[in-house]
Amino acid sequence: MRIAIASDHAAVALKADLREYLIELGHEVADLGPDSADSVDYPDYGYKLASVIADGTAERGVALCGTGLGISMAVNRNPACRCAVVSEQLSAYFSRDHNDANVIAMGARMIGIEQAKACLRTFLETPFGGDRHARRVGKLSHPPVSETA
Amino acid sequence: MRIAIASDHAAVALKADLREYLIELGHEVADLGPDSADSVDYPDYGYKLASVIADGTAERGVALCGTGLGISMAVNRNPACRCAVVSEQLSAYFSRDHNDANVIAMGARMIGIEQAKACLRTFLETPFGGDRHARRVGKLSHPPVSETA
Repeated sequence: MRIAIASDHAAVALKADLREYLIELGHEVADLGPDSADSVDYPDYGYKLASVIADGTAERGVALCGTGLGISMAVNRNPACRCAVVSEQLSAYFSRDHNDANVIAMGARMIGIEQAKACLRTFLETPFGGDRHARRVGKLSHPPVSETA
Repeated sequence: MRIAIASDHAAVALKADLREYLIELGHEVADLGPDSADSVDYPDYGYKLASVIADGTAERGVALCGTGLGISMAVNRNPACRCAVVSEQLSAYFSRDHNDANVIAMGARMIGIEQAKACLRTFLETPFGGDRHARRVGKLSHPPVSETA
């Protein structure tokens, strides 16, 4: 798959590790930055990631910050993105089966590398369940106009 | 505080328990539904909750579904909302200190009632850290126009 990965300064090391892991798994990876541990603002990188999901450049995204929470808020501003913050595999599984998540968010200060790899693998390998879930996912693509900026 | 609470069918029982808990804590609670365990679509309730946060009717929100993930995606479509999916108190703490979260999302099928109450209490009691976090939170209120529906 074509996978884009982005973070903030708190998750640069986790981003590097997961980028290597994705390449090992045979995926094509676009690293959207940052390249150093200098302080940045997570919304900038979340919006950047969301835009490559929205335009189809990437099929899936990986969003990382200290907790995964801040960057997930930014990514989910975009109706093309369904970003799931997870810290264990069962949530990663349901994010795909129920929500057809196309972006996974994780917190570099909250989980370790093996948990992160396991969540990522579950996110990549689990198909969407479709059926009644498809109607709900469809509604996520069309928020009320008054709800957007 | 004026707190709105909403869920899908999977989290109706947790919603009732947390509504009672919030009332015990002295808060004014608006229950946005659903009222029964009949199947509904979580985006409908997420958008409803987001709208009362956006118009100031509620100061904080509690969003519940099976995992917390689906309804959080809907709530975060609205740039007025900063919705954090949590399953333990440390994330609830950081969601306030770093992200000034105004909505907490939890999964009725993922965590038990005491964990949910503890997370909720941490969410309500933890102040926003401000400072550098304020600039980032500000950016969450202004996603790029191309990123919205």
